[in-house]
Amino acid sequence: MKHKYTNGQIVEGVITGIQPYGAFVVLDEETTGLIHISEVSDDFVRDIRQYITQGEHIIAKIIDVSEGPSQLRLSLKALNYSSRKDRTDKDNKRPLVPDAELGFETLETIMPRWLTQKEKDMVKVDLSHALLEGNVLDYQEDVNRIHEMLHAGTGKGSDYTGWLDWANRYDKDEFARIKAAAKRIQEQADVLLVCGIGGSYLGARAAIEMLQGPYAQSDLEIIYVGNTFSSTAIVRILNYIKGKRVAVNVISKSGTTTETALAFRMIRQHMEAVYGEEAAQRIYATTDAKNGLLKPLADAKGYETFVIPDDIGGRFSVITPVGLLPIAAAGIDIDALMQGVKDATFEFNTPDLTANPAYTYAVARRMLEKQGKVTEMFVSYETHMLFVAEWWKQLFGESEGKEGKGILPASVNFSTDLHSMGQHIQDGTKNIFETVVLIDNPIEDMLVPEELNDLDQMNYLAGKSLHWINQKAFEGTLEAHEVTGGVPNILISIEKADAYTFGYMVYFFFTALAMSVYMLDVNPFDQPGVEVYKKNMFRLLGK
Amino acid sequence: MKHKYTNGQIVEGVITGIQPYGAFVVLDEETTGLIHISEVSDDFVRDIRQYITQGEHIIAKIIDVSEGPSQLRLSLKALNYSSRKDRTDKDNKRPLVPDAELGFETLETIMPRWLTQKEKDMVKVDLSHALLEGNVLDYQEDVNRIHEMLHAGTGKGSDYTGWLDWANRYDKDEFARIKAAAKRIQEQADVLLVCGIGGSYLGARAAIEMLQGPYAQSDLEIIYVGNTFSSTAIVRILNYIKGKRVAVNVISKSGTTTETALAFRMIRQHMEAVYGEEAAQRIYATTDAKNGLLKPLADAKGYETFVIPDDIGGRFSVITPVGLLPIAAAGIDIDALMQGVKDATFEFNTPDLTANPAYTYAVARRMLEKQGKVTEMFVSYETHMLFVAEWWKQLFGESEGKEGKGILPASVNFSTDLHSMGQHIQDGTKNIFETVVLIDNPIEDMLVPEELNDLDQMNYLAGKSLHWINQKAFEGTLEAHEVTGGVPNILISIEKADAYTFGYMVYFFFTALAMSVYMLDVNPFDQPGVEVYKKNMFRLLGK
Repeated sequence: MKHKYTNGQIVEGVITGIQPYGAFVVLDEETTGLIHISEVSDDFVRDIRQYITQGEHIIAKIIDVSEGPSQLRLSLKALNYSSRKDRTDKDNKRPLVPDAELGFETLETIMPRWLTQKEKDMVKVDLSHALLEGNVLDYQEDVNRIHEMLHAGTGKGSDYTGWLDWANRYDKDEFARIKAAAKRIQEQADVLLVCGIGGSYLGARAAIEMLQGPYAQSDLEIIYVGNTFSSTAIVRILNYIKGKRVAVNVISKSGTTTETALAFRMIRQHMEAVYGEEAAQRIYATTDAKNGLLKPLADAKGYETFVIPDDIGGRFSVITPVGLLPIAAAGIDIDALMQGVKDATFEFNTPDLTANPAYTYAVARRMLEKQGKVTEMFVSYETHMLFVAEWWKQLFGESEGKEGKGILPASVNFSTDLHSMGQHIQDGTKNIFETVVLIDNPIEDMLVPEELNDLDQMNYLAGKSLHWINQKAFEGTLEAHEVTGGVPNILISIEKADAYTFGYMVYFFFTALAMSVYMLDVNPFDQPGVEVYKKNMFRLLGK
Repeated sequence: MKHKYTNGQIVEGVITGIQPYGAFVVLDEETTGLIHISEVSDDFVRDIRQYITQGEHIIAKIIDVSEGPSQLRLSLKALNYSSRKDRTDKDNKRPLVPDAELGFETLETIMPRWLTQKEKDMVKVDLSHALLEGNVLDYQEDVNRIHEMLHAGTGKGSDYTGWLDWANRYDKDEFARIKAAAKRIQEQADVLLVCGIGGSYLGARAAIEMLQGPYAQSDLEIIYVGNTFSSTAIVRILNYIKGKRVAVNVISKSGTTTETALAFRMIRQHMEAVYGEEAAQRIYATTDAKNGLLKPLADAKGYETFVIPDDIGGRFSVITPVGLLPIAAAGIDIDALMQGVKDATFEFNTPDLTANPAYTYAVARRMLEKQGKVTEMFVSYETHMLFVAEWWKQLFGESEGKEGKGILPASVNFSTDLHSMGQHIQDGTKNIFETVVLIDNPIEDMLVPEELNDLDQMNYLAGKSLHWINQKAFEGTLEAHEVTGGVPNILISIEKADAYTFGYMVYFFFTALAMSVYMLDVNPFDQPGVEVYKKNMFRLLGK
C-alpha cells in the first residue's frame, strides 16, 4: 500500500465528478481521491456545486492515504491557502443551480463502491469503547465465508432471505396501491387500528414512533391491537373507538394467530354494526397471497388485500406491505424509506470488515459474548426510539435465541433509565455490554431559556441547546460506564430520524443479524420455540 | 404438632365469628378452625352471611391440620352431605343483610395474625414451577437474622428504612392536603404534568397505569416530563400542551436534578406566560422539607409544597407524597392504597418463611442466582402492568446492582412478547428465570362473540371470556417454558388491580427486596453509581 502520496501533502488535481456527498479528483493516471462535502468549507455546505465546478483545477490537502492511491481522501478546508479562503467566503459562493441542469446521476450508477458507506455515513459503528480483547479483522475469513453463503442462499434457513434483495424486486404496482390505500385511510378515518402481533406490528410501530416522535400532532391516531389477550386492554380499546371514524389494517399471514384473529373478529363486528356494507371499504388485509384463512375471508368480505411474501419472515417484514401500509398511512414517505433500503442493500453487500459497519457490529457482539457478556443492552437517548428497541429485540432475540445459545437482548432509554437501570448496568454483575444507538441530528431542538433571578441555578445552561446537553449526558455516561464500570460500549450513530435513514438502518440491522447469528452456527430465520406455547395453549383451549 | 384431628375428618362445631373472608369455628376447648369463604360453596359466594349465621351449629370437613389445633382449615363444600346441599342450593340462600346490621369489625382488630396473609391472599407466591435445587426453608436462619437486623435498623443503609412503618406514622394533615390538592387539580386542569425522574415518577405511573389501564376514559390526561434530555420529546410536549388547561406537580428532593429542573424551568415559564399570577395556584412542588433549591423557589413563588421524607429513598417513595399526589389526582383512592400498605406492613412483619411470601420470593431468587440464573424476567399478561415492571426494575436494579453483584432485572409483556422475546427465553442461553406476576381478576372482561359462518374458525372460543383465554395462554406458556425450555418460573398472583392491592403489592416487593439484597450482603438503600454519570456530565456541561 506504499505509494508516493503522504498525509498532509498539498496536491493539484482536476474535478472529474460531482455528487451530492463530494467531488472526485484525478491527481495523475494512477491516483484519484475524494473531497467529501464536509471537507469543502468550515461553513455548512448545502450544495457542493456552489464551491466546485466540473473540470475545475484545484489545490487540496491530502488527509488520508490509508486506502491506497485510488482512494485518497482530500480536503479543501484543511488548506491554509488563499484559494480556500475564496471558496469559503460566503459572498463568493455561486448561486444554487437546479439538479436537472447539472444532472446528478443516481447514486448507484457512478458512486464508487468503497465510498458509499464511508461517505454517506448514514450509520456509523465505533468500537473504540467496546473494550474488545482482540481484533475484529481476525474474523475476516469467517465473514467472507458466511457472506458468500448468505448471498448464494446455501446457509440454514435460506428460504427466508427474500429481504436481501427485496428493494430491487418488490412489486411496484402493489407499492402504488399501498400509497393509494394510505391516502384513503387518511381521508376516511380518525383512528387506524393496526391489528397484528410480533413482526406484524413492531416494524410499523418502530418506524412511526421513531419518525413522528412522542406527542406529535397528527390527524390520524394509530392504535396497535390484536397483540394481546388482556381483556382489560381489549375492552378499553373497543370502548375508546366508539363514535370515532375508524379504519383497520389486519395483518396475519395465516389468519390463524389467535390474538389477532380474536381481536379482528370483535373489531370486524363493530365495523359492520357501525358502517354496514361500507365497512369493507375501511378494512385492509395484509396476508398470504392465497393460503390461510384471512385471504378467503377478505375476498368474501371484499377487503383490499396486500401480500406478505413467502420468503420474508415476520421480523424482516417492515420493508414489505406489512410495515409499509401503516407507515404510509401515518404520513411517512415510503418511497424514501425504500430508497434507504435499496442504498443499504448496495452498500452492505461487501464482506470487507473495513468497509462494512454492519458486519463489524456483527463480529464485535460475538467477540463480547466470548468475553462473558451474556446480555446486550440496546441504549437510546431519545424517547422516540423506544419501539426501535422493541423491534430490535424481536429481530435479535428470535433469530439467535436457540439451541441454548444467544445473547439476551434487553433495552433501556437514557437518561430516563439512568435513574433506574443505570446503577446495575454500571456497577452490577459484569456480564453486560451496551449498544448505544445515537441520533446525530434531532427532529426538534430548542435553547434553554435564561431566567432573571436564577432560583433553580440553571442559567449556566442558558443558550445551550437541549440536544447538546443530551450529548453531554451521553458522553458523561459513556465515561461512567466504560471507565468507572468497565462496561463495553458499541456506538452506532444514525445520521437523523427520517424515512430514508429508517430504511437504511433496518437493513443495517438485518445484515448484521444474519452475519452474527450464522457465526453462532444457528439458523437466523426460523423461530421454532414460538410454536410450543401455541400448541400447549390450543390443547388447553380445546381446539 | 400431633393432635387428635386429621385431614378428611368430619367434625361438628359452632360458628363464633364471621368475617368477610371466612367464618371461625370452635370445635372444642382447645380446637378452633376457619372456613375460608372459598370453602363455603361451589357457587360464587358474594357474602358469607347468606350461608352461615353467628352461633350456628355446623358440620364441616377438615382439610388441613398442618398448622395445629388452633388453626385448623375447614370446608363446607368438601362435604358430600345433605346439610351442604342445603347451603349451596341457591334458593335456600338468605337475603343479603347490610354490613351495619351485622357489624363486621375492621380487619386489624380481630383477624388472627396467622390468618391474615394466608386467607386474604392479596399476593400469593407459588414456587412449584421454580425448579429450585434445594429447600427455601434451609435459609430460615439467614432470614431470621436479616429480618431482625432490618427491623432493628442495624443493617447497611438503615437510615433509609423509613418505608418500613411509614403506613403507621405518615402525616395525616399532609395526607388531607394531598387529597384537597388532587381535587383542585381535577377542577383546574385537562393535563397534569408530572415532572420528575426515576422514583419521582415511576411509582405514580405504575399505579395510575395499573389501575386505570390503557385507553381509559379520563378527564385528566397525565404526561410524565422532566425525565429526559431528548429535545424532540421536550419540544413536542411543550407544543402539545399549548391551549390546554394545565397543572404541574414538580417532584425533586434537591431541586438540582438536571432533567427535572430544566424541564420545569421551561414549563414554569410557559405557565407564567399563560396564567400570570395564577400560575402559582396550578403548580405543586413535592420536595425536601427545607433543604435544596426547589423548596425556596416554591416558597418564593407561592406554590403549595409537600414533603419528601428524609428516610425514604426515591424507589420507595410511591407511598409518600411523591406518588400519592399524582395518584390521587388521577382519581385513585389513596386511603385504600395506604390501607393496603398498612395491612401489608402488619402481615409481612414475620420472618417465618412458611408464612411470609415476600421472604419466600426473596430467598427463591437468590437460590436461582446460585443455580446460574443471572437475569430475572418480570412477566405480565396485562398491558396495564408495563409500568409496574418498570417500577420493579428500578426497585431491584438500583438496590442490588452493586459491587459487581446482582441479578439483572428485565421485563416482557405476554402474550405480546411471546412473538418477540419468547423464543430466546424458552430456547436461548439457559441463564434466565421468569417471575410471572398474574392478576387473578381483570378490571374488564368480555365474552368472545359467535359468528354465523365462522370464516376465521374462532367459533370454538365463542362464549369463552377473554380472561379465561389469557389464563390458558399463561398455562400453555408456563408449560412451554418450564417443561420444554427448562426455565424456572416463580409465580406471583395479585388478587386484583385496585388501590388497596397496589399498596399491598408494593410493600410486598419492598420487603422482598430488602431481604433479598441483604442476603447478598449489599446495602439495598443507596445508589452510588447513579452519581458518576452526573459528575461527568456536570464537568462536560461546564458546571
